[in-house]
Amino acid sequence: MTGDPVGSEPVRVEVGLGDRAYDILIGPGLTERAGAEIAARMPGVRAAIVTDENVAGAHLEAFAAGLAAADIASTSIVVAPGERTKSFERLQDVVDGILSARLERRDIVVALGGGVVGDLAGFASGIVRRGMRFVQVPTSLLAQVDSSVGGKTGINTAQGKNLVGLFHQPQLVLADTGVLDTLPEREFRAGYAEVAKYGLIDRPEFFQWLEANWREVFAGGQARTQAIAESCRAKAEVVARDEFETGDRALLNLGHTFGHALEAAVDYDGARLVHGEGVAIGMALAHRFSARLNQCSPDDATRVERHLSAVGLPTRMQDIPGSLPDAERLLSYIAQDKKVTRGALTFILTHGIGQSFVAKDVPASEVLSFLRENHPG
Amino acid sequence: MTGDPVGSEPVRVEVGLGDRAYDILIGPGLTERAGAEIAARMPGVRAAIVTDENVAGAHLEAFAAGLAAADIASTSIVVAPGERTKSFERLQDVVDGILSARLERRDIVVALGGGVVGDLAGFASGIVRRGMRFVQVPTSLLAQVDSSVGGKTGINTAQGKNLVGLFHQPQLVLADTGVLDTLPEREFRAGYAEVAKYGLIDRPEFFQWLEANWREVFAGGQARTQAIAESCRAKAEVVARDEFETGDRALLNLGHTFGHALEAAVDYDGARLVHGEGVAIGMALAHRFSARLNQCSPDDATRVERHLSAVGLPTRMQDIPGSLPDAERLLSYIAQDKKVTRGALTFILTHGIGQSFVAKDVPASEVLSFLRENHPG
Ligand SMILES: NC(=O)c1ccc[n+]([C@@H]2O[C@H](COP(=O)([O-])OP(=O)(O)OC[C@H]3O[C@@H](n4cnc5c(N)ncnc54)[C@H](O)[C@@H]3O)[C@@H](O)[C@H]2O)c1
Ligand SMILES: NC(=O)c1ccc[n+]([C@@H]2O[C@H](COP(=O)([O-])OP(=O)(O)OC[C@H]3O[C@@H](n4cnc5c(N)ncnc54)[C@H](O)[C@@H]3O)[C@@H](O)[C@H]2O)c1
Ligand SMILES: [Zn+2]
Ligand SMILES: [Zn+2]
Repeated sequence: MTGDPVGSEPVRVEVGLGDRAYDILIGPGLTERAGAEIAARMPGVRAAIVTDENVAGAHLEAFAAGLAAADIASTSIVVAPGERTKSFERLQDVVDGILSARLERRDIVVALGGGVVGDLAGFASGIVRRGMRFVQVPTSLLAQVDSSVGGKTGINTAQGKNLVGLFHQPQLVLADTGVLDTLPEREFRAGYAEVAKYGLIDRPEFFQWLEANWREVFAGGQARTQAIAESCRAKAEVVARDEFETGDRALLNLGHTFGHALEAAVDYDGARLVHGEGVAIGMALAHRFSARLNQCSPDDATRVERHLSAVGLPTRMQDIPGSLPDAERLLSYIAQDKKVTRGALTFILTHGIGQSFVAKDVPASEVLSFLRENHPG
Repeated sequence: MTGDPVGSEPVRVEVGLGDRAYDILIGPGLTERAGAEIAARMPGVRAAIVTDENVAGAHLEAFAAGLAAADIASTSIVVAPGERTKSFERLQDVVDGILSARLERRDIVVALGGGVVGDLAGFASGIVRRGMRFVQVPTSLLAQVDSSVGGKTGINTAQGKNLVGLFHQPQLVLADTGVLDTLPEREFRAGYAEVAKYGLIDRPEFFQWLEANWREVFAGGQARTQAIAESCRAKAEVVARDEFETGDRALLNLGHTFGHALEAAVDYDGARLVHGEGVAIGMALAHRFSARLNQCSPDDATRVERHLSAVGLPTRMQDIPGSLPDAERLLSYIAQDKKVTRGALTFILTHGIGQSFVAKDVPASEVLSFLRENHPG
């Protein structure tokens, strides 16, 4: 594994959505090249860059300069970092910023940031003038491998996470693997949970490759680009098959039903739990729950837990600092989750590494006993 | 022209949008029959009824009872009447009401009301859980002939009207011609402006029929059903041709560029100007402006003005009570309007009755002189 030189050709992954197909470019140096890539595809546009304070500090100047060099005039809208920014109030701010810049329907909104910025800016771009063009420049690992691809956008409400939003596909995704060097280690690890997820869904060889090569992925260079590209390919395939999540796109929720409940349980307090950590615990729980329901071997559950622990991710509820609501309350968070259909609980379970499946009609009572057994309190 | 008996078969107009095609039913008595029509098409759904205080007072009880009789459980969300309700704040209230009722993606949001309720509830239904099912039960004439058909939803912001929203088609539109009997006369007249608009766009015979029969349309009965059905057919045709308004759906904006500017100029104060009145003045101005640009004969402009005046609609800026901002400011409202493309002004002009066309690159200077000439101040 060697680092690849800045300026080498990025890896290209296409999201095959017919006349709304778009490219994901992955590689180092894309922040500076973004202007050229955008101008080549969408000549004459102006841009509103939505970003958060952390990302603005590290990358906004270089990014805006790259746009300017390609003659793309831009305005910046900087929001506070963190999950709480995915709110109606901040949505309104971003919409207001875009409208005040007098951008038109064919101009672009650029999300320069992690999944929070991507979800918020994507939502705003989907509703200003009933849908503007949208470009994702994901800067967290999670955003590069997951949230920037597939067109899901949204915000949180008192009732739960991502309950409000829309499907709005970007025109282009630029994943600069170099910007991840400024990402806090904890955030990189959290994003890694989603990378591992693709292996666990249906790519057992990829999971095995990660078990062997995760240190290189963390270190950067070619292995990182490879892991991100493989993740994007995995996500793009599912999205192309099931754009509006009426079928097996639900597999992408492996670990997320438990994970979302835990995020809600800590009131989206990122100091206690960030999304990817919730997903890591959720995936470990999903495998253990599958073993309990005799769907997979306990060895597989142990193997998953071992790998996630090795990279430093939490795998059990007791890994979350502070106390959690009781099992009944956790179940109520799951029941409000949007993957509930007509009262029956839908879960992503697995028959083993890379053999996940959608299970409808999982009895709430089973979930409750399982939560009780695994509850630290 | 005779009144048709309550309970006769409604007129059916289909909006041909492929796998998202839907029916518009038009006729008396549909409020009470709504439950049966919905249950037949969407068995097992629950409903959130969004309505305003005026409509709730007159029709909510009968409507909810009709749903209950068809075993459709419902919850009601009542907003204040008026254009100011199309705001981020009220959107958030409606979204909150739907989520609190724990409705699922396949349940329905019903808009029982005028265009304000339709636009707001439609928007909410499009973003809760990234898109729920939606049923329009328009109760104003304007909503029956225009806003309930075609899937445009939205709210207003400080920057202008309908600048935020999305395309979200309903599953069904139920236009009960009987509920219009409780509509204030002024509102009926305002809605009539949109009826006349379809004649002026491309149906000269319909305009002629209206000149002869408008009194019967106002009185109710068969002529009313006929006028509404013809309007729905006209709108449905355009929508089927150009769902996302990238082409000649823009013709539906005849009278609206001027009209929206006037609505903004009175700060959406319905006491001074309601939407349809703005459209009436806007259509008169569009014809006069076309004559000034030598696109149509001044006689046609006079004929339009004469018919609109006959039914009691305003046709000139001085018909608006109170003072208006100056011509420069009115132009700035037009320039912010979303029909602006890359700085050039787009207008719907006409070559005569029923011969409207989209004119791009109308020089702002021409618009400004025209506004100055027609300004009352
Ligand atoms: N839309 C989807 O399909 C989808 C999928 C998965 C997750 N999500 C959403 O994504 C969000 C989580 O995304 P996230 O983990 O990227 O969170 P995030 O956007 O909050 O970013 C994590 C932190 O890293 C900082 N950061 C990001 N890039 C940086 C960089 N290059 N250098 C320095 N700091 C940087 C941010 O400021 C933030 O503090 C959640 O809201 C989740 O719901 C959406
Ligand atoms: N989405 C679209 O395609 C589209 C098209 C045209 C207009 N619009 C929007 O529609 C709105 C105007 O619609 P509107 O004229 O229906 O306004 P509205 O919804 O405010 O209704 C007008 C008034 O009539 C009352 N009302 C409605 N039905 C009644 C009934 N049966 N009995 C008694 N009172 C009744 C309402 O409470 C309100 O006071 C504007 O916001 C406009 O932007 C949208
Ligand atoms: Zn995730
Ligand atoms: Zn109108």
